[in-house]
Amino acid sequence: MNGRMICNILGMAMLAEGAFMLPALAISLFCGEGAAARAFAVTVALLLALGLPAVRLKARRRDLYARSGLAATGLTWIVLSFFGALPFWFSGAIDSFAGCLFETASGFSTTGATILTDIEALPMGLLYWRSFTNWLGGMGVLVFLLVLSPLADRNSGGSMYLLRAESPGIHASKLVPRMNRSASILYMIYTALTVLEFVLLLCGRVPVFNAVTLAFSTAGTGGFAVTNDSLASYSPYVQWVVAAFMFLFGVNFNIYFLLLVRQVRKAAKNTELRVYVCITLIAAAVIFGSTWGSYSGVEESARTALFQVASILSTTGFSTVDFSAWPELSRTVMLLLMFVGGCAGSTAGGAKVVRIQLMFKAARRSIYRTFHPNAVRLIHSDGEIVDRETVSSVCEWFLLYFIIIAASALLISADGLSMETNITAAISCINNIGPAFGSAAQNYACYSGFSQIILSLAMLIGRLEIYPILVLFLPAMYKK
Amino acid sequence: MNGRMICNILGMAMLAEGAFMLPALAISLFCGEGAAARAFAVTVALLLALGLPAVRLKARRRDLYARSGLAATGLTWIVLSFFGALPFWFSGAIDSFAGCLFETASGFSTTGATILTDIEALPMGLLYWRSFTNWLGGMGVLVFLLVLSPLADRNSGGSMYLLRAESPGIHASKLVPRMNRSASILYMIYTALTVLEFVLLLCGRVPVFNAVTLAFSTAGTGGFAVTNDSLASYSPYVQWVVAAFMFLFGVNFNIYFLLLVRQVRKAAKNTELRVYVCITLIAAAVIFGSTWGSYSGVEESARTALFQVASILSTTGFSTVDFSAWPELSRTVMLLLMFVGGCAGSTAGGAKVVRIQLMFKAARRSIYRTFHPNAVRLIHSDGEIVDRETVSSVCEWFLLYFIIIAASALLISADGLSMETNITAAISCINNIGPAFGSAAQNYACYSGFSQIILSLAMLIGRLEIYPILVLFLPAMYKK
Repeated sequence: MNGRMICNILGMAMLAEGAFMLPALAISLFCGEGAAARAFAVTVALLLALGLPAVRLKARRRDLYARSGLAATGLTWIVLSFFGALPFWFSGAIDSFAGCLFETASGFSTTGATILTDIEALPMGLLYWRSFTNWLGGMGVLVFLLVLSPLADRNSGGSMYLLRAESPGIHASKLVPRMNRSASILYMIYTALTVLEFVLLLCGRVPVFNAVTLAFSTAGTGGFAVTNDSLASYSPYVQWVVAAFMFLFGVNFNIYFLLLVRQVRKAAKNTELRVYVCITLIAAAVIFGSTWGSYSGVEESARTALFQVASILSTTGFSTVDFSAWPELSRTVMLLLMFVGGCAGSTAGGAKVVRIQLMFKAARRSIYRTFHPNAVRLIHSDGEIVDRETVSSVCEWFLLYFIIIAASALLISADGLSMETNITAAISCINNIGPAFGSAAQNYACYSGFSQIILSLAMLIGRLEIYPILVLFLPAMYKK
Repeated sequence: MNGRMICNILGMAMLAEGAFMLPALAISLFCGEGAAARAFAVTVALLLALGLPAVRLKARRRDLYARSGLAATGLTWIVLSFFGALPFWFSGAIDSFAGCLFETASGFSTTGATILTDIEALPMGLLYWRSFTNWLGGMGVLVFLLVLSPLADRNSGGSMYLLRAESPGIHASKLVPRMNRSASILYMIYTALTVLEFVLLLCGRVPVFNAVTLAFSTAGTGGFAVTNDSLASYSPYVQWVVAAFMFLFGVNFNIYFLLLVRQVRKAAKNTELRVYVCITLIAAAVIFGSTWGSYSGVEESARTALFQVASILSTTGFSTVDFSAWPELSRTVMLLLMFVGGCAGSTAGGAKVVRIQLMFKAARRSIYRTFHPNAVRLIHSDGEIVDRETVSSVCEWFLLYFIIIAASALLISADGLSMETNITAAISCINNIGPAFGSAAQNYACYSGFSQIILSLAMLIGRLEIYPILVLFLPAMYKK
């Protein structure tokens, strides 16, 4: 492992976090929130004091291989969550440090789960910071740093390891040959879409502060709202806009890049996108039918169904109604959508549509193989053969994913909440969604500090798609 | 496909079923249960009338390859469940045909789930038949037929395909070179253990009828009791005996064979057995601690914990208490045990300990691979290398298994029962356990006919470890 290089990267991430806290500090000062402003100032000072020496550490080698790349990514997210939690702690806005950590891990991992029972009581600066963590976590911190510098020696492919570890999906592919150019195109698309949503929200007469924070939380598919009832009190127009953008941010950003370079046909052929659209429509139709009569008129029913489906499928987690109180069929559909998530290369969490597709293809082939044991049957995806290694790595990924869900549900079950609450909370956190069923339908205040730490870890594991966090716990990782 | 050979096998299975109904018929006659006796007589006549011509059908070829072997196994179990349901239907003991099918599929698949709210009201003949289906389903109908005849041409390996399709675990291995000799050794061990349990129950002053039916249901790890409160009203001695035998019937029968041929050391080295013992003890210890104080004294607490763990792990499903009302930690432990099941080559259902072991090994390796992408790391089991095909087939098996659980839970959710009930009912049926949580903790009368059919199918899919039933739904199966 290249420890010094890892320190460099951690240092840069900390400096960046300090810089990103400045707008929140400014807002707190502007609104006269003394405690919050002091908390941000102290945290920024701490980040500077620790980040600067870490960046200045001279690394003998500038290479970064798989192992160090994974460790750097996992550690960066843990460190950012820790320091991101400090403003909540120093300002006294949240009583327990576990709660502060939960709130920040939830923000960076774009989960959007909260332990707050009264969100509106939070100072504006902290509300802004919460939503901003959603935005930053959506596209990734290291991807952001790659915009600024290649980070590692180009020949070792170190930057690629970082991009891969932080980007959702099976293969992280570069849009253009140069890594930092790829990263900056991604961030440009991301920013443009965020700004577009912000403008459309302003057109719907949403106050500026709410529009900014809503746009941040939608873009990152995070789901932190600044109002206690999430999106329920906004106008139908606003709900349609947010629903549309939740859907859009769940689409692979490569598709937008293809549209930018006018390869419309290639974009339209993408099977993951087609499956994503189909799942959205079918699930919304089932829910529309199953909840028919609960809402006044076709428009409200359709809006409610589509909003909630887009929210869960894109793993945002905004809500306009309490879907935990829906009929059982709709609830089960929502539960299954939680596992799917958005497309690879989007800001959404979950297993991702492409993995679900591969899972079904592998499962189907395994049935076929039982009666044609010697037949060679290849799995295709977008017209290309998926190689054996990829298929088995996806299968193994799913097993790990189910093991982690089971382990998390077991560990938090000691708190004595209902099985439905525990299992859906574990699923919701790992898939970076936010709301669960039962007691955790509104917030996670019902859980003990221990459970909140477990769920924080689960959220980070989910955001980084398991490995970058898990490897930190494997003894073999530290062997020479 | 060799359609005529499949008909031959179905015919033999039907004749065997008819013969197996004769004791039940005799009991009904002896107890003066007119309706039940007539129902058995008509069913036996039907089985004879349809089975005889099917057996006499001349097959041009006596070979049986993978495809036909799978189809024959799947169809046999569906046909046996259908005809086994007729006595319940003709006698009027169960009102709905879906209920009759559920009860019989539950019996043959050794699930032990019931739709009856008052078991004791059932005629003795039907009670006997219910428990006997548990016993027959435990070791397998085709394995039984293999005792009598090799069924298919020896060179095609057809009998092996049947044994493989019906036996639980990853590899069905023959104990001795000759197939029907293997099958008869298995049935001899099975019968001997059943008789031993019967005698020990008699020593505990259990009435003969109860002892027979209890022994049948324990041996098949089925779990049909003849009393409404399952095992709660039996003495502590009886509960200890049944707990021990549930555990023993969840052990791979190869172990007993090794003990018979005095290879004690080889038996003791079996890692699956060791893991099975460890899981039992750890789970019981956690439950013992978590339910401490609910029962009077150490003996009752230990007995309750061990009984329930053995019951769920061996997928029997007997109960002495309502574990659905336990503290949440214990409930979650029970839920996780439901997925494990017994050892391969036992009469237990579930995923089997050996698959869980392989799942963890594959998952662990996949973490390791992320930072040593090019390292070759083999998976070992009992000192031997597990080949690549086996590892990936186990992974794919798990994916199918989770897909089927999700699909079943979704399909039965329209009945409007709670999510906890639906999900645990699906898990319990697929793993051939019996009791679920929530509304299905005692029986499945709460479900509609449609859901009962779905769950019946799920039970058979689980018993045959997915493929033999699923292939029947795949169009490619019927292509030339």
